[in-house]
Amino acid sequence: MAKTEMRVNGERLLARLQALAAIGANAHGGIDRQLASDADIVARAWLAHCWEQELGLTVRTDAVLNLWGEGAAGTELGLKPLIIGSHHDTVPNGGRFDGALGVLMATEALQSLQEQGIRLRHPVWLLSFAGEEPNDFRISTFGSKVLCGRLTSADIAKLKHRNTGETLPAAIDRMGGDASAIDCARLAPGCFAGFMECHIEQGRRLIDAGETAAAVSCITGIYREVITVAGEANHAGTTLYKDRRDALAAAAEVVLAVESLMKDPALAGVAATIGHIEVSPNASNIVPGAVTVSLDLRTADPALRRQALTRLGTAVEEIAARRQVKITRTLNLDQPEMPMDATVRTAIHDACVEAGQRDQVLVSMAGHDAANMARLGPAGMLFIASVDGYSHCPQEFSRDTDVVAGANIFLRALCLLDRRLDG
Amino acid sequence: MAKTEMRVNGERLLARLQALAAIGANAHGGIDRQLASDADIVARAWLAHCWEQELGLTVRTDAVLNLWGEGAAGTELGLKPLIIGSHHDTVPNGGRFDGALGVLMATEALQSLQEQGIRLRHPVWLLSFAGEEPNDFRISTFGSKVLCGRLTSADIAKLKHRNTGETLPAAIDRMGGDASAIDCARLAPGCFAGFMECHIEQGRRLIDAGETAAAVSCITGIYREVITVAGEANHAGTTLYKDRRDALAAAAEVVLAVESLMKDPALAGVAATIGHIEVSPNASNIVPGAVTVSLDLRTADPALRRQALTRLGTAVEEIAARRQVKITRTLNLDQPEMPMDATVRTAIHDACVEAGQRDQVLVSMAGHDAANMARLGPAGMLFIASVDGYSHCPQEFSRDTDVVAGANIFLRALCLLDRRLDG
Repeated sequence: MAKTEMRVNGERLLARLQALAAIGANAHGGIDRQLASDADIVARAWLAHCWEQELGLTVRTDAVLNLWGEGAAGTELGLKPLIIGSHHDTVPNGGRFDGALGVLMATEALQSLQEQGIRLRHPVWLLSFAGEEPNDFRISTFGSKVLCGRLTSADIAKLKHRNTGETLPAAIDRMGGDASAIDCARLAPGCFAGFMECHIEQGRRLIDAGETAAAVSCITGIYREVITVAGEANHAGTTLYKDRRDALAAAAEVVLAVESLMKDPALAGVAATIGHIEVSPNASNIVPGAVTVSLDLRTADPALRRQALTRLGTAVEEIAARRQVKITRTLNLDQPEMPMDATVRTAIHDACVEAGQRDQVLVSMAGHDAANMARLGPAGMLFIASVDGYSHCPQEFSRDTDVVAGANIFLRALCLLDRRLDG
Repeated sequence: MAKTEMRVNGERLLARLQALAAIGANAHGGIDRQLASDADIVARAWLAHCWEQELGLTVRTDAVLNLWGEGAAGTELGLKPLIIGSHHDTVPNGGRFDGALGVLMATEALQSLQEQGIRLRHPVWLLSFAGEEPNDFRISTFGSKVLCGRLTSADIAKLKHRNTGETLPAAIDRMGGDASAIDCARLAPGCFAGFMECHIEQGRRLIDAGETAAAVSCITGIYREVITVAGEANHAGTTLYKDRRDALAAAAEVVLAVESLMKDPALAGVAATIGHIEVSPNASNIVPGAVTVSLDLRTADPALRRQALTRLGTAVEEIAARRQVKITRTLNLDQPEMPMDATVRTAIHDACVEAGQRDQVLVSMAGHDAANMARLGPAGMLFIASVDGYSHCPQEFSRDTDVVAGANIFLRALCLLDRRLDG
């Protein structure tokens, strides 16, 4: 068939985006659909219903809650599946596109192929990963980490929900997974032909350049640690300044030290953030005794990361010594930068250029499940323009025209990939 | 009778302190016995049982959950009651003495009088105030504020529990109070002859001087506000430094600006603390969009308070302008300094000196229900030495010898007061 015939049903895709956005919608205009939440349960049921009833797929939840929709065999016997998808969970008060767009675009691409009577050489499977976003179990890209073997049952056994205290294994069983079979969910390297994920860019590069979409060249390295400040809780009225060991004042200096890393031109390309803080006892009339903050540090350049962490270490030691508090830093995540597979990247890139996009590829400064899938087989990503770069917030937005044009690029890339990939 | 005969039963007092400390005890060695908590319910039942069964008092809970134990009439007809007591609630992870000591010392004083067959001229009533500590309903000295008319049903209607969302009126009804009669709980000025409260000092002045107890001259003014920083939530990886409006980084500067007030010798006698912080959305991979912190500022000198707040205002405006965030300050409490009544103070002071204590009176840098009671009638306080000044934390401690010696001073002061006060 001619490639001009291959069009997705844009209205259906936009309607599904709207429907999924209603699941977990909160009063602030955002979405609360974290792993193992009630909204997660509803979204899974909604997706499974769509995949079973509208696409006729065989839907299953694996042991760690990844949701799979397995399509018919391909035309060529013995070829492994092409896996397409993203995730349906959100950060607290998150946006409508992060994750949801990739899942629904993959859904739309497969359904469009079905409706146009096109069978690819490879089977096509849909996948919605479990717990891609950092969540109250203190883990991100949970489902894909298990698939690629970076996370085992032993790691998971220790994790507890920050507020409810429920263990992750208990949540897995409650949600229809199987905590006793966590390690069986791991995939063998080479078990799929290729993996492709569409995602919003979450930055301003495409929108500022007036572009719709681009292929991703590399996914940033992400380093996370938990920094704990142990001071001494005491009475806010009767404790003189000289007798205070205020953990929050010390943590405030740590926050500013982390921020200062981003100001330094020598560390351009490093993103460093403290996004989470917990204070104990957190009462207005008590000098804070203990504070825990999260550090999130990203760069595609390992040398820059080392330099930033060394500088932070020096600052933290100085703060601890001067304030007579104990500051402990615990590694939480050390995910190296991950280049995308050349074949997948090129297929996506070619589809972009065919659709009139500029000849460019982008580094992703956000982590994605695709980085874990890249450990198992050829993986790549398509980025869609984010208006004003808003991400992980209710203002997150991609234009309808970009969503639909991006879906057509995604469909075209899928077909190119089907031809170019073997195995 | 000779004053040497008047001794409390120290062992009984210490045993009761131990028993009450078990109610709400947590795994960190502290006590969680906040207003309207399960532990609050248990402590009330325990106190009511003690007062009814062991002292034969008439126990009642007023509309706003203050617990009253009303004793027999005095020897002189028509005299108003002497009220003694403190509070039984604690801060989160609080100590064993703050509040509990005052309630149980008052209990012990009255029981000792009963056992020694001594009837005072005035009736003696016991009182354990509701919600003296700041709590999740964002209020402190709740019970005594209502008694003296500083807080009305209209104020209370708006208050909700920070975590559960339960309104304070609903909690009042659930706990056995009567939210529909809040305004009836108010006491008429002059309705009691005198009020006396014993409390730990919560500072190091007595312990450093080798003293057991002292009378309080004045209770510090307490000023509280809620400071809200509105920035913009965004993705921690893809948002460049120039595009960030990080509410937590701005709040960190506010924390340090508040701390700097205490460093300035020109503001000696000012205690300023940020003890509570809330961050939204508080996820490790999101630049914080909004932060709320509490300011607690204390001094016995209104001029110093004005000076400190002016300086803070200048600092906050500079931070907001430079960072392009919006910072809002909302007054939460403005409690003026409150001198103690001369007659009550002198009775306590004389009892201290009779017991061999140094001739001194102390300013209280902590707020107390006694400051509210002082609006209604003659009120005073006795301070007991705090080891190392620890307060509002599990390390809070007063020595058995000081507790028992303090109780004897309290009993003696009560008898002096009974003779010296009329009406």
